[in-house]
Amino acid sequence: MKPLTPQELEAKLRAIGAQRYHRLHPFHALLHGGKCTKGQVQAWALNRYYYQAMIPVKDASLIARCEDPALRREWRRRLVDHDGESEGDGGITRWLKLTDGVGLDRDYVVSLAGLLPATRFAVEAYVHFVRDKTLLEAVASSLTELFSPQIISERLEGMLKGYDFVSADTLAYFAKRPPLARRDSDFALDYVKRHAKTPDAQQVVLKALEFKCDVLWAMLDALYHAYVAPKHIPPGAFVPEDGRRSG
Amino acid sequence: MKPLTPQELEAKLRAIGAQRYHRLHPFHALLHGGKCTKGQVQAWALNRYYYQAMIPVKDASLIARCEDPALRREWRRRLVDHDGESEGDGGITRWLKLTDGVGLDRDYVVSLAGLLPATRFAVEAYVHFVRDKTLLEAVASSLTELFSPQIISERLEGMLKGYDFVSADTLAYFAKRPPLARRDSDFALDYVKRHAKTPDAQQVVLKALEFKCDVLWAMLDALYHAYVAPKHIPPGAFVPEDGRRSG
Repeated sequence: MKPLTPQELEAKLRAIGAQRYHRLHPFHALLHGGKCTKGQVQAWALNRYYYQAMIPVKDASLIARCEDPALRREWRRRLVDHDGESEGDGGITRWLKLTDGVGLDRDYVVSLAGLLPATRFAVEAYVHFVRDKTLLEAVASSLTELFSPQIISERLEGMLKGYDFVSADTLAYFAKRPPLARRDSDFALDYVKRHAKTPDAQQVVLKALEFKCDVLWAMLDALYHAYVAPKHIPPGAFVPEDGRRSG
Repeated sequence: MKPLTPQELEAKLRAIGAQRYHRLHPFHALLHGGKCTKGQVQAWALNRYYYQAMIPVKDASLIARCEDPALRREWRRRLVDHDGESEGDGGITRWLKLTDGVGLDRDYVVSLAGLLPATRFAVEAYVHFVRDKTLLEAVASSLTELFSPQIISERLEGMLKGYDFVSADTLAYFAKRPPLARRDSDFALDYVKRHAKTPDAQQVVLKALEFKCDVLWAMLDALYHAYVAPKHIPPGAFVPEDGRRSG
């Protein structure tokens, strides 16, 4: 079996995005099309918060196993982006402005008490993947960022138009992300193209991106099942509007 | 805060089962009521296979962190139950008789190629929980077995009556389980009652059982979403009847 050229590898990675990235998930069609109820938007923001909150943990565990100062420095920017330079700054805080903006209590969001268990399992699978797999696979699993600028522009436009309870201020997270996502994914794509030279290494890179697409997809499947149809909210998870389920 | 008596702790554990054990999940009502299609039964057996296959891995990681030979010996029985004394024996093999019996290709089942990503994430969350939490929590997370004899008898009766493609031979796994589940859960319940003496320890025991109920529940949520309604099968997962999805 011949290795792919770097260009062929990139084409295969982009093909995975075109088929499996969560932009294609039916929940996003509802969310971006202004078709969600406020409770569904809340459930999405609440669950996605856990993903946002764990991103620096996953990035730090990548840095923690990396022997190359240049790669560590590069990856460290991601910690800065999410955790900020000081209290009140950074991507996680901007996500909390979104959960505030859609009417969720911040302490409740941060407590994770209302999280869907499936969200927790999917996010933790991502953290464990980055901690336990090869560095090459860990870098490759970040490549969903290649596809995020498009979904973010659809989301910004669609949510501003579709929901009167959403303002540009509420969506500040998304306005800031695309240039950072482009910088990060350009770097990660270049890294895997330079380091995945054998057919085996190229296969694990492709699998790592599929895995990451599965993580994002599974989070939306769980949201859809709990809050869109058939609305089977698992015991203990966030119940919109009519208050919180007891027990 | 006063600690619970062992009897009070047991009552609280049983109350969690009464509220959150997956016997109450709507998928089981369909499965046991003879209301599933053959493809839905196949999807259930295929996904549950991964849970069965990982049980000895989780049990071995409990034994691996345990300094008490008596507890290790006791827990070792679980390895014997699932892995058997020799090739062709044990619970995992009996589960494969079930997947054979419902018409799935054994190599396909064992390859895990058709698994729902959410199944993988939930099962791995359980394995990681047992590996990373305290020994007391690891033991407590096995306590769903307290509630399994009832669900198994409902399943045996319901599936034999409900599906002409299911025979007693196919369901051999279930016929064997109840006495083993009773022995194991009696031991584990006694263990947590003897070791969880402080309010904090009792809280983590209760949380561990809730966590495990969440794992089982999330597996059925994912099955329901993919194969019952709205039948959004995630990219790459098992597609009943009309063959396997490509890519």
